[in-house]
Amino acid sequence: MRSMANTDVPYELYYWPEIPGRGEFVRLLLEATGTPYRDVARLPEAQGGGYPAIKRVLASDDGLPPFAAPVLKHGDLRIAQSALILHWLAPRVGLCPPDERGRLAAHQLQLTITDFLAEAHDVHHPIAVSLYYEDQKPESARRARCFVAERLPKFLGYFERVLRVNGGQHAVGAGPSYVDLSLFQVMAGLAYAFPRATGKLRPTLPHLTALHDRIAALPALAAYFASPRRLPFNQEGVFRHYPELDDAE
Amino acid sequence: MRSMANTDVPYELYYWPEIPGRGEFVRLLLEATGTPYRDVARLPEAQGGGYPAIKRVLASDDGLPPFAAPVLKHGDLRIAQSALILHWLAPRVGLCPPDERGRLAAHQLQLTITDFLAEAHDVHHPIAVSLYYEDQKPESARRARCFVAERLPKFLGYFERVLRVNGGQHAVGAGPSYVDLSLFQVMAGLAYAFPRATGKLRPTLPHLTALHDRIAALPALAAYFASPRRLPFNQEGVFRHYPELDDAE
Repeated sequence: MRSMANTDVPYELYYWPEIPGRGEFVRLLLEATGTPYRDVARLPEAQGGGYPAIKRVLASDDGLPPFAAPVLKHGDLRIAQSALILHWLAPRVGLCPPDERGRLAAHQLQLTITDFLAEAHDVHHPIAVSLYYEDQKPESARRARCFVAERLPKFLGYFERVLRVNGGQHAVGAGPSYVDLSLFQVMAGLAYAFPRATGKLRPTLPHLTALHDRIAALPALAAYFASPRRLPFNQEGVFRHYPELDDAE
Repeated sequence: MRSMANTDVPYELYYWPEIPGRGEFVRLLLEATGTPYRDVARLPEAQGGGYPAIKRVLASDDGLPPFAAPVLKHGDLRIAQSALILHWLAPRVGLCPPDERGRLAAHQLQLTITDFLAEAHDVHHPIAVSLYYEDQKPESARRARCFVAERLPKFLGYFERVLRVNGGQHAVGAGPSYVDLSLFQVMAGLAYAFPRATGKLRPTLPHLTALHDRIAALPALAAYFASPRRLPFNQEGVFRHYPELDDAE
């Protein structure tokens, strides 16, 4: 059972309730490993959820304050930064390389995914996060042309190379890890936000494409993908579909 | 002895030789702990240094390839991502909290510093890293106004809060850590790049200002700061001084 309000569960996730965003990388690991968790901000405010739950966790000075969501709580431990949450959580719930070197490699790769997410987000917000996309459209259009022509092939070519070097099946180590789930989420987000640009690159990305399709069909995630817990991509998150930004050449 | 070409040293740093950039956070930890290291790309090409050294380390498919510099080599281990390098290195050389929770907190904070560096960099490169600043000046001017008005006070206010919550002297734990060095470098970079905007905020940042001044006067770093090993800020790195971007209101 997952995301229940009135059961004691060991892991509590705090993330903006309307978007997959950076919280989804944590959700995928929790769901794929069948780990019970509470998705706190998606509960009604009357049950301690909603935006006020996130505001409370960000405002607390009990230990190192988090700068931003997602935040994972486990007992009195509170961890922010999605890549660090995954690095800490995976050895406890599974989908993690068994050795220190493998865990280092997984974390390094997840941090590069994090860098890519920031760049992908800023395609629709090149000037300021405080402004609407509609208030920075000319700058977005210019940044999108450079992103599609340069950064998208560079990052995806790198992830493809990582898979190829590691034997083709998994991002790091000899078995599946949370990084495979993260690369799936990146490819799913790009297919939503940049269907034309990503479609053109796909023939050059056989391992990444196959990895995406394997995770999309993973039995351990089937119930999750069919449930309302899986948030669809939309126009509020990291990956947004503005046709005018997608390979406008 | 540091940065020597013909001595066997356990740590080799690969980073662009002309800028402090993200490599400087690693250098500060190595220097403050008196750890011998080789700053490979700052050696002459004839001694295996220069740009070709970085190209070689980025091109190697022996293990997980790094996406970008800095890269730290230690034996046959190769680590990328400056925050991860620090997280791995600090328990081996010092300036690290002694317990796992403290090390988690240090890494979380360093990752937030990493996010801030990306935002500070993109003030002068809001459209593309492949373009010169001169080719994206109007967009930079607009982004700079938002950065100075919103993001700079938000991040610096957060770092000040972190210091205050932790007792005022150190970023995490009961003693000095590499995160203190990193916050020093952030404040030094901002004083170079945004002297007006940072000067206006400084009265609201007593702990951050005092931390900067303590690290600047640290006996363990005095020889380094007086040496050519310490690269000055310039117009090629993360922190660049374009007066028109500095609090132009």
